[in-house]
Amino acid sequence: MSVGRETCFASLMRRRGALFVISGPSGSGKNRVISEVMKVRRNLKYSISVTTRPMRPGEKDGVNYYFVSREQFEDMIKQGDLLEYAEVYGNLYGTPRKPVEEILAAGEDVILDVDVFGARQIRERCSDAVLIFLLPPSVEELERRIRSRGADDEETIQRRMNSALGEISALPEYTYVIINDELDEAVSRLASIIDAERCRTSRISFDV
Amino acid sequence: MSVGRETCFASLMRRRGALFVISGPSGSGKNRVISEVMKVRRNLKYSISVTTRPMRPGEKDGVNYYFVSREQFEDMIKQGDLLEYAEVYGNLYGTPRKPVEEILAAGEDVILDVDVFGARQIRERCSDAVLIFLLPPSVEELERRIRSRGADDEETIQRRMNSALGEISALPEYTYVIINDELDEAVSRLASIIDAERCRTSRISFDV
Repeated sequence: MSVGRETCFASLMRRRGALFVISGPSGSGKNRVISEVMKVRRNLKYSISVTTRPMRPGEKDGVNYYFVSREQFEDMIKQGDLLEYAEVYGNLYGTPRKPVEEILAAGEDVILDVDVFGARQIRERCSDAVLIFLLPPSVEELERRIRSRGADDEETIQRRMNSALGEISALPEYTYVIINDELDEAVSRLASIIDAERCRTSRISFDV
Repeated sequence: MSVGRETCFASLMRRRGALFVISGPSGSGKNRVISEVMKVRRNLKYSISVTTRPMRPGEKDGVNYYFVSREQFEDMIKQGDLLEYAEVYGNLYGTPRKPVEEILAAGEDVILDVDVFGARQIRERCSDAVLIFLLPPSVEELERRIRSRGADDEETIQRRMNSALGEISALPEYTYVIINDELDEAVSRLASIIDAERCRTSRISFDV
């Protein structure tokens, strides 16, 4: 890079968007942390996943998920329309590729909520992705949070607990870890990671 | 990593200290930004450099620098006592290795103020170091800041300007870039980088 004498540095920099991938077990408080950080950080787009699981009461198509049939989903896989996908508890979940690529190209950041299997696929395809793992404060608190939902039977609760502990073992594969003890603190740490990644030179090109 | 059922996650994590290396040309406001961020972030130790340059009025040995003779400095090089060193304007500047290693081993972070030559040596020796470049907002503002010191003759000012522009060309070698337009904003970005790096899994070991 060479710079002239009439140069305002900010105007010379062009930043590619960053892809933030958030994982965390059931009970980590991931959804709440993501929705809170989006209130305090602009230019952060949430990528809506596509799924074959049935819509739950209160959910809306195109808001919580794009709800599709298994046939439609498998067609998206064949067409290469998914950035990642995984089968969890018999349902397919995936991330449509095109909207993510469009947001990043426009210099805005994307935040994705995917499980450890999805995160692994994204890491392989986008080495530049920022992988963040959200942990509950303790195993006991994890179990309390899972039970407090009140809608699941004991077998489902145990299955969620075992699945959560399995996911946590993938933590070292992530770039960052945040313990969600106090919500404000967890949101603030995620915001700091976002702010820091926005200063990363590897995503900045210099128009000189 | 495997986790038991009676597990508080924070207590299982042990973090190595991070080495933050800040560079920025004369006029970038580097010293002010570093002193401000140290007021708002704890466990951040400033590493005092050693130099052969003469002490300036108001400076104190062991506070601003360790002031040593050229013979003493060359002996430190031979003994491997320096993490990095460089000759600038005929004076030698270096970072004593031992205090830095002791702070990092204790799980605290170190902040170093070195030029681009020093940063290159540190990057080679500590691939884990976090390199941060501080930019003034524009070339004009850089010149205004260098001139506003009022203590230098025109030749020195031009030499500092040319040196600053040369240093800026090394910016892509750094991990992060911060433009110091508003002091509060620059300090806040540096604090975010520190907070983010404290969440980085590569520096965390899990005692399980």
